[in-house]
Amino acid sequence: MGTTRETGTVDGRSTVGHAPEAAAARGAHGVEGRPGTLGVAVIGTGRMGADHVRRLHDVISGARVAAVADLDADRAARLARDVGGATAYTDPAAAMDDPGVDAVLIASPGPAHEAALLDAFARDLPVLCEKPLTPDAASALRVLEAEQKLGHRRVQVGFMRRYDAGYRTLKSLLTKGTHGRPLMLHHKHRNADTPPGFTNAMMINDSVVHEIDVTRWLLDEEITAVRVLRPAPTGNAPEGLSDPQLILFETSAGQVVDTELFVNCGFGYQVSCEAVCEGGTARIGDDHGVFVNAAGQWGGTIPPGFVERFEDAYDRQVQHWVDATRRGEVEGPSCWDGYAAAVVCEAGVLAQASGERVPVELIERPDLYG
Amino acid sequence: MGTTRETGTVDGRSTVGHAPEAAAARGAHGVEGRPGTLGVAVIGTGRMGADHVRRLHDVISGARVAAVADLDADRAARLARDVGGATAYTDPAAAMDDPGVDAVLIASPGPAHEAALLDAFARDLPVLCEKPLTPDAASALRVLEAEQKLGHRRVQVGFMRRYDAGYRTLKSLLTKGTHGRPLMLHHKHRNADTPPGFTNAMMINDSVVHEIDVTRWLLDEEITAVRVLRPAPTGNAPEGLSDPQLILFETSAGQVVDTELFVNCGFGYQVSCEAVCEGGTARIGDDHGVFVNAAGQWGGTIPPGFVERFEDAYDRQVQHWVDATRRGEVEGPSCWDGYAAAVVCEAGVLAQASGERVPVELIERPDLYG
Amino acid sequence: MGTTRETGTVDGRSTVGHAPEAAAARGAHGVEGRPGTLGVAVIGTGRMGADHVRRLHDVISGARVAAVADLDADRAARLARDVGGATAYTDPAAAMDDPGVDAVLIASPGPAHEAALLDAFARDLPVLCEKPLTPDAASALRVLEAEQKLGHRRVQVGFMRRYDAGYRTLKSLLTKGTHGRPLMLHHKHRNADTPPGFTNAMMINDSVVHEIDVTRWLLDEEITAVRVLRPAPTGNAPEGLSDPQLILFETSAGQVVDTELFVNCGFGYQVSCEAVCEGGTARIGDDHGVFVNAAGQWGGTIPPGFVERFEDAYDRQVQHWVDATRRGEVEGPSCWDGYAAAVVCEAGVLAQASGERVPVELIERPDLYG
Amino acid sequence: MGTTRETGTVDGRSTVGHAPEAAAARGAHGVEGRPGTLGVAVIGTGRMGADHVRRLHDVISGARVAAVADLDADRAARLARDVGGATAYTDPAAAMDDPGVDAVLIASPGPAHEAALLDAFARDLPVLCEKPLTPDAASALRVLEAEQKLGHRRVQVGFMRRYDAGYRTLKSLLTKGTHGRPLMLHHKHRNADTPPGFTNAMMINDSVVHEIDVTRWLLDEEITAVRVLRPAPTGNAPEGLSDPQLILFETSAGQVVDTELFVNCGFGYQVSCEAVCEGGTARIGDDHGVFVNAAGQWGGTIPPGFVERFEDAYDRQVQHWVDATRRGEVEGPSCWDGYAAAVVCEAGVLAQASGERVPVELIERPDLYG
Repeated sequence: MGTTRETGTVDGRSTVGHAPEAAAARGAHGVEGRPGTLGVAVIGTGRMGADHVRRLHDVISGARVAAVADLDADRAARLARDVGGATAYTDPAAAMDDPGVDAVLIASPGPAHEAALLDAFARDLPVLCEKPLTPDAASALRVLEAEQKLGHRRVQVGFMRRYDAGYRTLKSLLTKGTHGRPLMLHHKHRNADTPPGFTNAMMINDSVVHEIDVTRWLLDEEITAVRVLRPAPTGNAPEGLSDPQLILFETSAGQVVDTELFVNCGFGYQVSCEAVCEGGTARIGDDHGVFVNAAGQWGGTIPPGFVERFEDAYDRQVQHWVDATRRGEVEGPSCWDGYAAAVVCEAGVLAQASGERVPVELIERPDLYG
Repeated sequence: MGTTRETGTVDGRSTVGHAPEAAAARGAHGVEGRPGTLGVAVIGTGRMGADHVRRLHDVISGARVAAVADLDADRAARLARDVGGATAYTDPAAAMDDPGVDAVLIASPGPAHEAALLDAFARDLPVLCEKPLTPDAASALRVLEAEQKLGHRRVQVGFMRRYDAGYRTLKSLLTKGTHGRPLMLHHKHRNADTPPGFTNAMMINDSVVHEIDVTRWLLDEEITAVRVLRPAPTGNAPEGLSDPQLILFETSAGQVVDTELFVNCGFGYQVSCEAVCEGGTARIGDDHGVFVNAAGQWGGTIPPGFVERFEDAYDRQVQHWVDATRRGEVEGPSCWDGYAAAVVCEAGVLAQASGERVPVELIERPDLYG
Repeated sequence: MGTTRETGTVDGRSTVGHAPEAAAARGAHGVEGRPGTLGVAVIGTGRMGADHVRRLHDVISGARVAAVADLDADRAARLARDVGGATAYTDPAAAMDDPGVDAVLIASPGPAHEAALLDAFARDLPVLCEKPLTPDAASALRVLEAEQKLGHRRVQVGFMRRYDAGYRTLKSLLTKGTHGRPLMLHHKHRNADTPPGFTNAMMINDSVVHEIDVTRWLLDEEITAVRVLRPAPTGNAPEGLSDPQLILFETSAGQVVDTELFVNCGFGYQVSCEAVCEGGTARIGDDHGVFVNAAGQWGGTIPPGFVERFEDAYDRQVQHWVDATRRGEVEGPSCWDGYAAAVVCEAGVLAQASGERVPVELIERPDLYG
Repeated sequence: MGTTRETGTVDGRSTVGHAPEAAAARGAHGVEGRPGTLGVAVIGTGRMGADHVRRLHDVISGARVAAVADLDADRAARLARDVGGATAYTDPAAAMDDPGVDAVLIASPGPAHEAALLDAFARDLPVLCEKPLTPDAASALRVLEAEQKLGHRRVQVGFMRRYDAGYRTLKSLLTKGTHGRPLMLHHKHRNADTPPGFTNAMMINDSVVHEIDVTRWLLDEEITAVRVLRPAPTGNAPEGLSDPQLILFETSAGQVVDTELFVNCGFGYQVSCEAVCEGGTARIGDDHGVFVNAAGQWGGTIPPGFVERFEDAYDRQVQHWVDATRRGEVEGPSCWDGYAAAVVCEAGVLAQASGERVPVELIERPDLYG
C-alpha cells in the first residue's frame, strides 16, 4: 500500500511539434481522449507573476506550474520550490523549452513582453500575456504582425475586467440589447493613492487602459478620438500629477464615453460603469456586500485595492484561458485588442498634454481578428 | 406708482408708502410686532402659475393669493374664483397695484419677465420670478442694472433645486468641507420624453439651466467655459434633436463638471449629482423610497416627471420666499444668478453648434451681489 | 382694475356657538364662502407642545396659535409672547373658551388627556390629541363613550406615522393590492438610547404603540394576540431594561407581524417596515439620502432621533388636521384607534411579563367608527 | 466490493491502506513532496450528484472524479463517460474501493446517507456529505457515534452557506466582534415556488435547516428552543401548505432568531440575514449586482433559484474540502453540526404542529467536536 509511483510530472509528456494542427489537436499534454493538466511556464515572478503562480497552483483547475523564469534567479528558484514540481529558469526561452510546458503566462515588465511573445510564437505556444501587450503602439503592431505570420491566434491579453462578474452581466445586457443600443458610458476609476513615481502618462497607460479595453469590448466599437480635461488637482496628489482627470472617448458608432480617473481619492478602490442605452441604463460596480448600521452611519466597506476588487476576475480569467487552451482554442482579448489599446493610450497621452481632441488612427483590422 | 393703498386685510393694517425703507420695514401687512399674511400677485396663470396659486392657497403658511393676472381673462377669473378672496386682472401692473398686494410671483412666459420685473421694481415690490430671469443675457443684464438702480435686492429667481432636500444636504456638506474641496461634479438629468417642438437650444435653456445654477451654487464659483459633446442620438428622439448630450463646464476654480442630459430616456424623470471632493464623494438623487421585491425584480419606481420629483422643493422654495419677505429680507438666487445662467446658456448653445470650447464672459460682479 | 374690496378679513372673528351643526358648518372662523384661518388652543407647552406651537406659527398654512395653556404660567406666557397674538392660560378649559379658538391641540402629558378631551367635547371643539389618547384602556374607553354621546367624531389622534411619506406609499400599495394580500409585516424600531427612567412598560406604551397603530392601519385589521420574546439584553441598556425585544402580533385576518424593538442600539434612530404580500414585498425606511464614499466606507448618515426622521410627518399631520377642520371634517386616526392601541399595549405589557401569548379583547366597534 | 479496475488515468495510482495515520499522511495520491490530485468517488448521480461531478471535473483545482455510483447504472455510466477516466458502479462501497479513490462525496438521497457514511468510515475515507447528514436525529446520532469510534473526524457536511461570500463576511464581523455581541438574527428565506409534494415538514427539514446551521455557526451557540408561527397562508401555496411561516429560535446565550420562510413568494429566490449586535447591525443578501433604470423602475434582477444564488458557495465548499483533504485535514461543518441540525429540525416540526415553544435537547457535545 502507498506504493511509490513515477510521476515524472503529473501527466507524462509528449514532445509536441509546434505545427499549428498539432498544437490545436493536443490542447495540452493529452491523455486518452481528454485533455491533461496544462503545464504552464510563468515568465516574470514579480508581484503579478508570483500571484499567478499561486493562482495556478491553488485555485485553477486543470493546470500546474511547470516552469518559472526571472532574471532574479533566487526569486525564481524560491517560487519554484514553493509550488513544487516546477523548474526555475533565468531565460524565458529556456523556461518555454522545459519539457513540461504546454503554455506560457507572461507577467514580466511591459518592455520585456515583445521578446517573450516572439519566443512563444517561435514555439507556437499558447500565451496569456499580462496587459499591456507591449508598452507602445509600434511594438504592439510588430507583435500583431508576428502573430499574423504564425497564421493563427496564440495570445490572450490580460484585460481581466472582461472576466469580472459585473462587467460580464453588463456585456450580456448590451449584447442582448435588453435596453436598446448603448449611447454613452460613464466610467469611474478611483484608487486610494499612487505609488512613488506615478506619472500623468501612467494614468493613461496603466489605469485608463482598462477603461479603453472595456469600452471597446462592451460597445464592440473602436475608439476614434480622445480628449482629456484636467481639473485643478487635489492637494493629495504628488506635485506634478494632474489628478483627477476626465477622459472622453468617441467611438466609431458616435458614442461618447467619459471616465473619471481619480488615483489619489483617499477612500479606497472603486470601479464602476454605467451604460446609457436608448431605453434604460445599467450600472455595475456599486455592489454593496455587507450592509452595516453602526456609529451613526449606514453603509459598508470599500475595498482597498484592485486585488480585492478583481480577485475573482483574475481567477476566472486564468481559468478561462486554461480551459480554452486545453480545448485547443484561443479566446478572450486578442493582440488586436492589445494593439488598439496601445494606440488609444498614445492618443490619450497626447490629448492629456494638449487639452485638444486627438483622433485615433488604427490600421485596418486584419482578417485574423475579424 | 408707489400709490398709497388701503389694504383692508387680514391682520389689521398700515398705510404703506413704497419707499424702500418702508418696504423693508414692513415685511408685509404687519400686525402688532409680527408680520401679517403676505398678499401675493401671481402673474401668469398657465401651468406653473396655476400651480403656484394652488400652492400659496393650500400649502404655504403666512401668504395668500391677493391677485392674479393673465392675458387670458377667463382663465385668470376662474383661478381667482377657485381660491376665493383674489382679484383677477389682465394687466400685470394693475395686479401689482391691487391694494392687497405685498409681493409678486412672476410665472408668465420668459419673454414677459423683463416687463413684469420692471413693473415690480417701479413699485419696489418683492418678487419671486420663475426661471429664467429673462430669456437672454442682454435682457438679463438690463434687469440686473435696473435692480442696482433700485439700490437693493428685490428678486428671488425660481431655481427651485436649491430648495430640494438632497441638494441642500449636498450644499451643506460642501460648505462644511466635510470631504475637502470639490474637484468635479457629475450631473445626470433625464426626462422620459420631450413635448412637441422641443429644440436643441431648449435642451440648454430649459433643462441644463438647472445644472448651470446648481453648479454655480454648490461650488460657489462662476462657470468659465462650456463644451458640448453630442453622441449619435437615440432613435427615440424626434428628428433633429441631438439627444443625449454631454455638457462640460469649467469653473473659475478650475473644477470640471459634466452633465449627461438625456431628455428622451423613456424610463422616467431622474436627476442626480455626485460631488467628487479631495477626500470623498457624495451623491444625491438615487433616493430609493419604497423598496419592492416582485416579479423577479428588486427595486422601485422612478417618478414620471419633475413635478413629482421636485414637489417638495417647489413648496419649500415658495415658503422660504414668503418667510424671508415677511421678515423684510431677500434671499435665494439673485438677479446675478439669473444673469450668469443666461450668459452660460448662450455660451452653451454656441458650444452645442460648434463642438468647440466656448469661454463664458461675465461682467464684473456688482457690489449689490457681492 | 385695482378695485378696493372688503375682505371681512380672514381672522377677525365671530363668537361661534358650539352646537354641532354650527361647528360643522363653520369649519372655522369663516369668511364669505371660504374657511378662515383656524385659531388653535395648544394645551401643554412642554417639548411636543412648544414644537406644535412653532409648527402652527411657522409652517402650517391656514392656522394660527390663538391660545396656549400650561400649569407653568411663565412657560405658557413666554411661548404666547414668542408667536404674538396668542393668549396664555393655566387652565385648559379657559384656553378653549378664548374667543379666537376654533380647535384644540392637546400636547399635555398623557394622564391629563382625558380631562382635556372632555373639556373639548363639552365645547364641541375639533381636537388633535397627541398620542396616547389616554394612558390606559379603561380611560380610553371612557373617552370613546363620551365622543359617541356627542354623536360625531371630534378627535384626531396624533399617530403621525400615518403622515410619513414612506408609510403612505406603503399604505397605498397595500390598498391598491399591487402585490396581493399582505401576509406578514416586519417592523424595525431602533433608538440610539433611552432617557433616564425608561422602563420595559414604556417600551410597549411609548415605542411599540407606533407599530401597533401602523400595523392596524396598514393591514386594516385588529390585533388579536401579542407575544413578546426577550433576548439576553445588550450591555448598553440600563439595568433592568430588557433591550432588544421581539414583539409578535397576530391579526384578525391571521397575519403575523414581528417588531424588533431596540431602544439602545447606539447608532441612531431607524424605523423600517416590510410588508410581505402574496406576490411581492415592499419595504420602507431604508431611504438613503446622500450617498457618500469616504474613508474606506460607502454609505450615509442615520438620523439621531425621531424629530429628524419624522419632521415632515409631524408637519403633514398638523396640516391635514387643519385642512380637514377648516372643511368641517374629521379625519385621521380616531378615538377607536386610540382605544385599540391602549388595549393592545396593555396586552403587550402582560405578554412582556409572562412570555406567553396574550389574547387582545376589544369591545365591539361602535357604529361611529364603522 | 472493491473490485479492481484499470483506470488508465492521469495520475497513476496507489493502493492506499486506510489506517488513519496513512490517510492523514498521504493527504491524497502524492507526488514528490506535494499532494497529488484527489480522486473522488461521487455517490449518487441525481441533480446534486451530477452537479458535483461536473464541478469536480470543470471547476475544482486538485481533484478529479475517479468513480461514480448510482442504483441507476445507466445514469452512472453516462456520467462516468462524460467526464472520462471515471468508473461507474451501482454499489457505493465498490466505488469507494476503486483504487483511484481517495475521498468520497455523498450526494445520494438522505435516507441512503447513513449506510454510505458507515462504508466510508470502514475505509477511513474523507467524506463530503450533502445535507442532511441523515434524515432524523436518531440516525444522525448513530453516525456521530460511529465517527467517534473511528477516533478522528472524517466528515464535512454540505452546509454550503458557510462558504458563501456574504455569510463569510458576516461571520468574520461577528468573530472579530466589530459591532459587539450579537443579540438577534433576522433571516429571510424565500423561494419562487415549491415542487409538487412539498410538505410543511419539508419546510423545516429542507429549507429552514439552512437557517438552523448558519444560526449555530454565526452565533457559535446551540439552539435551545423553537417556536413556529403560521400566518394565514398565501393563495399561491398548494392546499395544506402553511406558507409563509415565522420560525423563532432561542439560543444557549439567550439570543432570539427569527426566520421568515416563504417558499411560494413568486418573485424569485432570496436569502438574507441581518445580525443585530450591541453596537450595530450587519445585513447580507441584499447585494445588488447590476443596477438598472428602465421602464419606470430602478433596480435589478432577483435570481430564480438557489443554484444561481449559491453557485459560488458550492464551488468554494468543494474546493475547500479538496484543499483540506489534500493537506490531510478535516474542516467545515462536522457530524455534530449535522446531528444538531437534525435535532432542531425534529423540534421544529413538532413546534409547527403544536404552535407551542418546543425545547431542543442535545446530548453533551463529545470531545471530538469540542
